[in-house]
Amino acid sequence: MPSLSRYLPILDWGRRYDRSAFTGDAVAAVIVTIMLIPQSLAYALLAGLPPEAGIYASIAPILLYAIFGTSRTLAVGPVAVVSLMTAAAVGEVAASGTAGYVAAALTLAFLSGAMLLALGLLRLGFLANFLSHPVIAGFITASGILIAASQLSHILGIEGEGHTLIEIGAGLVAQLDEINPITVALGVSATAFLFWVRGGLKPLLRRMGLGPRMADIGAKTGPVLAILATTLAVWAFDLGARGVAIVGEVPQSLPPLTLPSFSPELLSQLFVPALLISIIGFVESISVAQTLAAKKRQRIDPDQELIGLGAANMSAAFSGGFPVTGGFSRSVVNYDAGAETPAAGAFTALGLALAALFLTPLIHYLPKATLAATIIVAVLSLVDFSILKRAWRFSRADFAAVSATILLTLLFGVETGVTAGVVTSILVHLYKTSRPHMAVVGRVPGTEHFRNVLRHEVETQPHVLSLRVDESLYFPNARYLEDRLSAYAAEKPELTDVVLMFPAVNEIDLSALESLEAINTRLKDAGIRLHLSEVKGPVMDRLKRSHLLEELTGEVFLSQHEAACRLGSPANLEGTA
Amino acid sequence: MPSLSRYLPILDWGRRYDRSAFTGDAVAAVIVTIMLIPQSLAYALLAGLPPEAGIYASIAPILLYAIFGTSRTLAVGPVAVVSLMTAAAVGEVAASGTAGYVAAALTLAFLSGAMLLALGLLRLGFLANFLSHPVIAGFITASGILIAASQLSHILGIEGEGHTLIEIGAGLVAQLDEINPITVALGVSATAFLFWVRGGLKPLLRRMGLGPRMADIGAKTGPVLAILATTLAVWAFDLGARGVAIVGEVPQSLPPLTLPSFSPELLSQLFVPALLISIIGFVESISVAQTLAAKKRQRIDPDQELIGLGAANMSAAFSGGFPVTGGFSRSVVNYDAGAETPAAGAFTALGLALAALFLTPLIHYLPKATLAATIIVAVLSLVDFSILKRAWRFSRADFAAVSATILLTLLFGVETGVTAGVVTSILVHLYKTSRPHMAVVGRVPGTEHFRNVLRHEVETQPHVLSLRVDESLYFPNARYLEDRLSAYAAEKPELTDVVLMFPAVNEIDLSALESLEAINTRLKDAGIRLHLSEVKGPVMDRLKRSHLLEELTGEVFLSQHEAACRLGSPANLEGTA
Repeated sequence: MPSLSRYLPILDWGRRYDRSAFTGDAVAAVIVTIMLIPQSLAYALLAGLPPEAGIYASIAPILLYAIFGTSRTLAVGPVAVVSLMTAAAVGEVAASGTAGYVAAALTLAFLSGAMLLALGLLRLGFLANFLSHPVIAGFITASGILIAASQLSHILGIEGEGHTLIEIGAGLVAQLDEINPITVALGVSATAFLFWVRGGLKPLLRRMGLGPRMADIGAKTGPVLAILATTLAVWAFDLGARGVAIVGEVPQSLPPLTLPSFSPELLSQLFVPALLISIIGFVESISVAQTLAAKKRQRIDPDQELIGLGAANMSAAFSGGFPVTGGFSRSVVNYDAGAETPAAGAFTALGLALAALFLTPLIHYLPKATLAATIIVAVLSLVDFSILKRAWRFSRADFAAVSATILLTLLFGVETGVTAGVVTSILVHLYKTSRPHMAVVGRVPGTEHFRNVLRHEVETQPHVLSLRVDESLYFPNARYLEDRLSAYAAEKPELTDVVLMFPAVNEIDLSALESLEAINTRLKDAGIRLHLSEVKGPVMDRLKRSHLLEELTGEVFLSQHEAACRLGSPANLEGTA
Repeated sequence: MPSLSRYLPILDWGRRYDRSAFTGDAVAAVIVTIMLIPQSLAYALLAGLPPEAGIYASIAPILLYAIFGTSRTLAVGPVAVVSLMTAAAVGEVAASGTAGYVAAALTLAFLSGAMLLALGLLRLGFLANFLSHPVIAGFITASGILIAASQLSHILGIEGEGHTLIEIGAGLVAQLDEINPITVALGVSATAFLFWVRGGLKPLLRRMGLGPRMADIGAKTGPVLAILATTLAVWAFDLGARGVAIVGEVPQSLPPLTLPSFSPELLSQLFVPALLISIIGFVESISVAQTLAAKKRQRIDPDQELIGLGAANMSAAFSGGFPVTGGFSRSVVNYDAGAETPAAGAFTALGLALAALFLTPLIHYLPKATLAATIIVAVLSLVDFSILKRAWRFSRADFAAVSATILLTLLFGVETGVTAGVVTSILVHLYKTSRPHMAVVGRVPGTEHFRNVLRHEVETQPHVLSLRVDESLYFPNARYLEDRLSAYAAEKPELTDVVLMFPAVNEIDLSALESLEAINTRLKDAGIRLHLSEVKGPVMDRLKRSHLLEELTGEVFLSQHEAACRLGSPANLEGTA
């Protein structure tokens, strides 16, 4: 049943599951579980939700993705950028800490899941192409800065607020006198320790005799050490009573069955944020999935990925979670730790379920500052301004899109930023294709080749204009061709023949067809004939479905050489007329 | 001073103005003036404004366009579609017949003029390319139907309302018992007469001995006869007292100096409608201008046209008018009547100013039903469903855009309709370019030519995949190439070399570059080398500004033939590695 296993990839890998795959998957699951516990709590904090929501958001979604997703090693759950976008979107409709906030986060996950499913079932994954690479890179860099800035308040022990750099900064400045020194001490040491873990722990473990892979994995579990140490410190010295914000009571429970709110008002308020979260999440996830799959020559099906992520988000909505997607670092750890199949995800879900049942009392004394430190260290690796340099060197158009995205995200928040990025790149794209490269060509003497008159020494005839169009013709540029030809006709009174050379025209749409018809008519009114040459097969097929070829005042030549020979002198012209 | 005359085309033609041009211009001006008086009154009625606004909107704008515009024969003033859009936009913010309504129309003209000027000065005319030909055709057809429907109430002598087909229809049905039979008699006979004028007057004039041009022009002045006859009938039988709606008191005055409202609330409410009106008006106008200019091999500069239309609309805002643009029928009449230069427009403005001063008392008794008849007969010629058939035959994508535009314009009004058309055509465009044509190619035996393996009998090698990309690579399709190559790598375990053939790749943006880099890395991880062949010069220049060529695991071949020879057998491969 190829069609069923297309929609249920589990039928494919599940049938061939064996002991060796089980061993790899189980080991990976243990390591990923240890890594995910602090990460899940931290991203829940970032999203403005109670800490257990982070663990819940990691359980059902992993299972659902394991059934429907096509990547063998992608690890799904809360990630930094999507959590930030969740906080921004839900913060618009409810106050953090209220039941309405939690319910709105469920609705956001539901909407986002429904959109991803719909995009997948309708095979509309191409919509993600709206987001160009530079826009995503700029958006993620700016988001990393926003996230790190938003976590500073937890490190300082004050109330944070705001979704733009200015709001966050103003909030910090306004409360500077309420800084809690003990929290600062904990937060700064945790941050310093975690930075050292990133750079220094792995070499240390290597020197202690661990193999490179194990040292790498050991270094990834570093955050757990910071959590243990700071939790113990708070418990031992009763720092909670001295103003250190702690996680507090966390229910000891499996993910609860929850129902998102379907109020039409809430759905319409969250529609656009959910769409942006879906697309950003999908783009992030598929790029990780493809990178990992390539290493083992496995196949990722983008439309099926939409279905897998859609199912994962739907399940988050019904199990006390919030929007999720495939995470980069956790997927890499999963892959490096030897995960072979999505069963590794299922085992991770089991591990997290056990943690939710038995470990939650232990995190009562966990200081929020430690979670903030975990987030800051994780997201600063997302910040990478080199995209600005790359874009500047490669093309000014891309530079415009990436700098608009970074600036607007920092100044006006994630939704404005990513929307501006999308709009800018579409505008830039339309602008570029609206002025396609065209070259007046002439014959290279003694050959059958035709080249740009501006770049080569070529022969031309005053009464013939041969114009090579180096772009497909469609509505963004149809009018430009009209304008250019009107200009040529007005400038050259001796002109009797125009040849449009189409070797690089891959497509013609109805707008361009109508432009060609208008050009034909206008040139005819001006006493000039219009010819075509080197038209590609599919384009010719399309033109035959119109009246253009019947009405064309000139001819269609197989080659530009043939056109030049036939139109060689006015005398010949009479013959062909 | 070429730079100054670029922005002031009047300096160019004004310097060479002579008696022959004067004669042509003056004759044309008389004819156009006679035609414009009823048209201006009618379009003011359609826009929901007092009749004199139509005449005012024809005076200053014509003068300003004469100074700044590049077309020699374009006649600027109120036109049907823009008047309908004005009624829809202003109707949202004020009630018809109030001072606020008139003021909002001025603001709309001001905003629209400012936008056109800005687009022209910033050389952003390409934004009009958002509107594809089929979308415009569909929009104009649907607008024609809406306009005709909206005028039915005047023919029936009842109060009309609504901006969608359903609202208009419901309004008519609700007031059926208030129909005024005398108005119906007048309206129906005027409509019938005007339809006859369109088809029958010209042959009659020809039979009466007029030349074809004069007969044509005579037929165009037909509406004046209808106006004279029905006005006389109302006056003679005092039909105004018997319930026939008449134009009534019209001030005898030159265009007044008016100031549009600049309330921020009004400006923000009218922003989107003004943008749509600007773009629709510009697209309509430039297409008429180019068609007429081509007949005399004159040049139209699109960016300067934006400035000309912008100045015209600004002047309408300060002289009691409403949004204007270049009209099709009046421009054709102007051209056919022998206009040589924009001075014809200036003389027309003079004629209309005289009419505003001296003729307005005569139109006191003009029935509104006659104006409605003028509008109905004029706009029904805009209705042309053949675009649906053309689009269906030519491409389903264009058909989707045109049918969405027609349906949504009729059901939800002009703004929703045109926006939906723009969005649909951009989506369709992105969808099409997101899945570019690519062909796996092989060598035609015994030649150096490479063709699609699906269409030709060609030779391939199992360890080499040669893929010809028939489209520029940019963000809408960058990911598709990644997906396709991931799929090939997963399907063909024997693959060692991939050659991307780029003869039709006209452009590569940063997204596509990063996709190529990702493809290179992923193929490398899978033990496959990536090569390029037949890269165009400008694309190669661009790639040299990146690290791709340094990191490429394979080579860049000048021709596919060279690539095939070098990669011919695995043994050769080792040699080049």
